[in-house]
Amino acid sequence: MVTGAGSENPYADAEPKKVRALIREGKITSQTSGMCEGYAQANLVVLPKELAYDFLLFAQRNPRPCPLLEVSDTGSRMLHQIAEGADIARDIPKYRIYENGVMTGEYTDVSRFWRDDFVSFLIGCSFSFEGDLLAADVPVRQIEEGKNVPMYNTNIPCAPAGVFHGNMVVSMRPIPYELVPKAVLITGQMPRVHGAPIHIGDPAHIGIQDLSHPDYGEMVTIRDGEVPVFWPCGVTPQNVIMNSKPSFCITHAPGHMLITDVKNVNLKY
Amino acid sequence: MVTGAGSENPYADAEPKKVRALIREGKITSQTSGMCEGYAQANLVVLPKELAYDFLLFAQRNPRPCPLLEVSDTGSRMLHQIAEGADIARDIPKYRIYENGVMTGEYTDVSRFWRDDFVSFLIGCSFSFEGDLLAADVPVRQIEEGKNVPMYNTNIPCAPAGVFHGNMVVSMRPIPYELVPKAVLITGQMPRVHGAPIHIGDPAHIGIQDLSHPDYGEMVTIRDGEVPVFWPCGVTPQNVIMNSKPSFCITHAPGHMLITDVKNVNLKY
Repeated sequence: MVTGAGSENPYADAEPKKVRALIREGKITSQTSGMCEGYAQANLVVLPKELAYDFLLFAQRNPRPCPLLEVSDTGSRMLHQIAEGADIARDIPKYRIYENGVMTGEYTDVSRFWRDDFVSFLIGCSFSFEGDLLAADVPVRQIEEGKNVPMYNTNIPCAPAGVFHGNMVVSMRPIPYELVPKAVLITGQMPRVHGAPIHIGDPAHIGIQDLSHPDYGEMVTIRDGEVPVFWPCGVTPQNVIMNSKPSFCITHAPGHMLITDVKNVNLKY
Repeated sequence: MVTGAGSENPYADAEPKKVRALIREGKITSQTSGMCEGYAQANLVVLPKELAYDFLLFAQRNPRPCPLLEVSDTGSRMLHQIAEGADIARDIPKYRIYENGVMTGEYTDVSRFWRDDFVSFLIGCSFSFEGDLLAADVPVRQIEEGKNVPMYNTNIPCAPAGVFHGNMVVSMRPIPYELVPKAVLITGQMPRVHGAPIHIGDPAHIGIQDLSHPDYGEMVTIRDGEVPVFWPCGVTPQNVIMNSKPSFCITHAPGHMLITDVKNVNLKY
């Protein structure tokens, strides 16, 4: 999930570990956009072990829309690679619980729901490459306009895996024609956060009939001399999971991400 | 597994699909080194489903030594992504079967052993980047000397996953000092076949006590002005699996790989 917002966040320069501690104490329950600038934020999906193999295989087969940053041990609420000491059930400001594919509640702490058969998947987010685009003077329109990035269902099939199948969801950013190659090169350096665009130009070519009405997020302005550029989107795995109506699933609430200890620059190497 | 050999293979310019057909017919039972130049070759590990989740998680956590090119559907002998129409049980020239961690036989066809609970893992091989090194005038000593690449156990821990744990195995190629940065840049472009070196120089720093006696493969000449450069090696997952003594496991025989339809150049993108 990608959510745009203005900067000047009071936690923009804070250490990820300190912000996670404030979230755990319930002192931060807001969106994480703009916090801990320079550090990667991650999407969360928690599934029962009976679905974990199929989902891990889905991610292996579809790394563009579903780049895994870390997968927990079964039953463990701890992370070891991207956020040392993090508690998955408490260190995200807001969670959603889905039962049989229907959202049944939002919570700031899901520790009382935790089960020994839960596996947590932390998925990279294109927040991470937007900083590099801005730094290189490539505009990121939804940030300029303080909106959520527009996202679309496409006709691009994902490789199915077990119970999981579906088409790719993409995010769109309008890029001035002369900056498109630069945008490809910058984002192509970061495959762990969706990487290079999947499509440049004509929306109909990937099954998008009406660019002005995104399926998720909000439309942004496309100016003269700009072309819509489409990136694989982390909403893809969420959609694919919800289509399969798992008996129980926990995700982050949109925009309320896990703030990791991984610097965005280190996602390139 | 990495195996060096001279070139001028009679199948050097053949199409992968045709060579796989000849292997299936039993007309090729030799090592695949030098066949279908320009196309990636893959290591094979077949495990029962009960171990597949742990191994898939091990690969997710250790992509440098264990880069997955494709994972089959459970019970299926077909591949869909890297070798359309390939039969995993017949299209590799020689297989090994391990029972409880002990090799119990070598076969040119394992279809009679196939079970509905088998999952096949195809793992990238550094064969793929050696062509790029040679093309850029970076020497690959074991190819020059017609040997198997020297490989070493190290003190670099892999991230454990379920029943699988152990240290990384590395391959070593001596590189002239002035070409080391070039070798890093070339191989760093191909993370799906082990990518950039994991270590450059002093072998003791990664726990290698005697460079002249590799743990696997054969020693090659290190000339004046050259430095040993170490890459993550596909023997790592084989070792880690065998340490766990699975009841039944099929692998390719060393040097007898699956020839894929994937051009090496496409492993960069």
